[in-house]
Amino acid sequence: MSLRVGVVGGGQLARMMIAPAVELGVELRVLAEDVGMSASLAATAVGDYHDADTVLAFARDVDVITFDHEHVPQDVLAVLVDAGVAVHPGPDALRVAQDKLVMRARLAELGMPQPDWAAVTDAAELQAFLDAHGGRAVVKTPRGGYDGKGVRVVSAGTEADDWFATLAEDARGGALLVEELVDFARELAQQVARRPSGAMRAYPVVETVQRGGVCAEVIAPAPHSSERLRAVAAEIGVAIAEGLEVTGMLAVELFETTDERLLVNELAMRPHNSGHWSQDGAVTSQFEQHLRAVLDLPLGDPDPVAEWAVMVNILGGPAEESLDARFAAAMSEHPQAKVHTYGKAPRPGRKVGHVNVSGDDLDDVAYQARAAASFFLD
Amino acid sequence: MSLRVGVVGGGQLARMMIAPAVELGVELRVLAEDVGMSASLAATAVGDYHDADTVLAFARDVDVITFDHEHVPQDVLAVLVDAGVAVHPGPDALRVAQDKLVMRARLAELGMPQPDWAAVTDAAELQAFLDAHGGRAVVKTPRGGYDGKGVRVVSAGTEADDWFATLAEDARGGALLVEELVDFARELAQQVARRPSGAMRAYPVVETVQRGGVCAEVIAPAPHSSERLRAVAAEIGVAIAEGLEVTGMLAVELFETTDERLLVNELAMRPHNSGHWSQDGAVTSQFEQHLRAVLDLPLGDPDPVAEWAVMVNILGGPAEESLDARFAAAMSEHPQAKVHTYGKAPRPGRKVGHVNVSGDDLDDVAYQARAAASFFLD
Repeated sequence: MSLRVGVVGGGQLARMMIAPAVELGVELRVLAEDVGMSASLAATAVGDYHDADTVLAFARDVDVITFDHEHVPQDVLAVLVDAGVAVHPGPDALRVAQDKLVMRARLAELGMPQPDWAAVTDAAELQAFLDAHGGRAVVKTPRGGYDGKGVRVVSAGTEADDWFATLAEDARGGALLVEELVDFARELAQQVARRPSGAMRAYPVVETVQRGGVCAEVIAPAPHSSERLRAVAAEIGVAIAEGLEVTGMLAVELFETTDERLLVNELAMRPHNSGHWSQDGAVTSQFEQHLRAVLDLPLGDPDPVAEWAVMVNILGGPAEESLDARFAAAMSEHPQAKVHTYGKAPRPGRKVGHVNVSGDDLDDVAYQARAAASFFLD
Repeated sequence: MSLRVGVVGGGQLARMMIAPAVELGVELRVLAEDVGMSASLAATAVGDYHDADTVLAFARDVDVITFDHEHVPQDVLAVLVDAGVAVHPGPDALRVAQDKLVMRARLAELGMPQPDWAAVTDAAELQAFLDAHGGRAVVKTPRGGYDGKGVRVVSAGTEADDWFATLAEDARGGALLVEELVDFARELAQQVARRPSGAMRAYPVVETVQRGGVCAEVIAPAPHSSERLRAVAAEIGVAIAEGLEVTGMLAVELFETTDERLLVNELAMRPHNSGHWSQDGAVTSQFEQHLRAVLDLPLGDPDPVAEWAVMVNILGGPAEESLDARFAAAMSEHPQAKVHTYGKAPRPGRKVGHVNVSGDDLDDVAYQARAAASFFLD
């Protein structure tokens, strides 16, 4: 095919679209923030995605614009849409992923199950929420948070005073999001692909294991899941994708409570860490599916190719030089492990790659994935 | 990793190394014959591989040189080796793949089972071979043949006079290869990866179906195969890889005779059409394995991820414009089919892509693969 997809952002998600783009015959073009980023092989432009002229110039030569992240400002997105550029996901959907208060309000309108929440503008309002919810709660900045940043557990209304002060300085004003502290048994993620023309395919719900607010491991499908749980998760994903008219990949992060309810935690409208297992564990990877979806091509089969897949993230720490030796050692000990690297300079806590293992014995699959990834630990 | 592999030749085999290179973190550089070839995304140079200076300049900045084809002349390979460049497969191994008479002689030295053969320099010698082998035989030009070109079934010694005349004009002189016409039940292919340090991994033997001298379809593993047959095929592959000191991927094309013997037909020292199924059907694809092997990295698991995989080639015919619509139709009807495109302008009989399907029911897998590929037929 001679279709062209333009990706704004040159991180690892854009990088991992390169492989399926080559095989599909889709020309992938990337607007990277800087030279030498993860997706540099496909980078045809380097520039600031906050600048409408830069993004519009990049968009001129492609059939559709999509994203490595959700941070492109609404005014830039509006310029694209006004110029007739196909933007997937579109600005209205992205707004929900960009602002956690908008997200909570829209999910409430859609009747989605979620934690109790409120928009609070000062310490007194926060304290009132705390008083009504057992004295502890989670406060989040509506914008800009990821991987645990912009998230704080508080037990007093004054513990977010610094964030309230920052909001007060921001000309846009606004509020913080406060959510009840959910007593969850585990965290899950549900992915759904949706085409502009409306067709959808749901991936199996997966279990995600977080450490220090960062995704550490994913098990696909989520073990010990009843048919009902799997169906409810898929229904939530489909309802959100449809309700928000998401195009491309949607990831819905979920809490499974100790009383077996599912509550929506976060949304991402792009390929997501919880779906990296699909590169080696599903008929159609989330990266291929995202390309197909944003191009409004027929979606691929999201079914797993083995009973189980486990993904373990590789976090930075070791210096670049030692990564090669560690890589060879991991490959040698675990020939069934698929090691994916992001071409990023390692620094502590930074995601620099991941390991996928698939197979029919979950204990063995999880062991192999963790053991292979452990070669990259300090 | 920051390892760099240089591939001489910009065809689809180089193109299909791009995806695993990105994921492994290997920097792939391609010396393409022309602009706009299959592997153009990774093409860092365009030039003539017959020119030693061109190839040597390309090789200066990479850790290892490997190939999209076996056509790089020995004098060019010698210049690389003399300059200290790591070349995999090396010139001695490649010579065997470049000249079918050399191949027959070396396989005989290794004690490999093969059809009766002879080097013939004129019609009388050819007639003598025919008289001793039932009056019909296969004549092959030792160099430059592929996909059925340079191969002719003859029943009279004079039927290769044009080729003898061409040989006579060639300053190098030489002979034609004549082989007995094997009464084969089917054709198989055995792939083996070998590292410079000697470690090897064998893929399961597959069945290849040829139409008009061109590979049409591959079934992996070869159906209705006894354990003995699979073991013998692997032993032949390993013995040849070791005996010829092949580095990277080796494909051994085999005849299975009606009395269940295996005879070596052809060799290829690179990823091969018979291994395309492994992109979606094996833990480690032949393209990833080739990169690992030529870099002397630990080899990956060659095991299938499902019981069966079927690959069907897409041959040119339809015009470029219609390929998009056909692609979408194939994707729509067969969401489990993996369509791989080569970015080549279609022309009749030219390989422009292939379809892989994997699963546990061979009838269904073969049906899906053939049906998906049929969308690309005229």
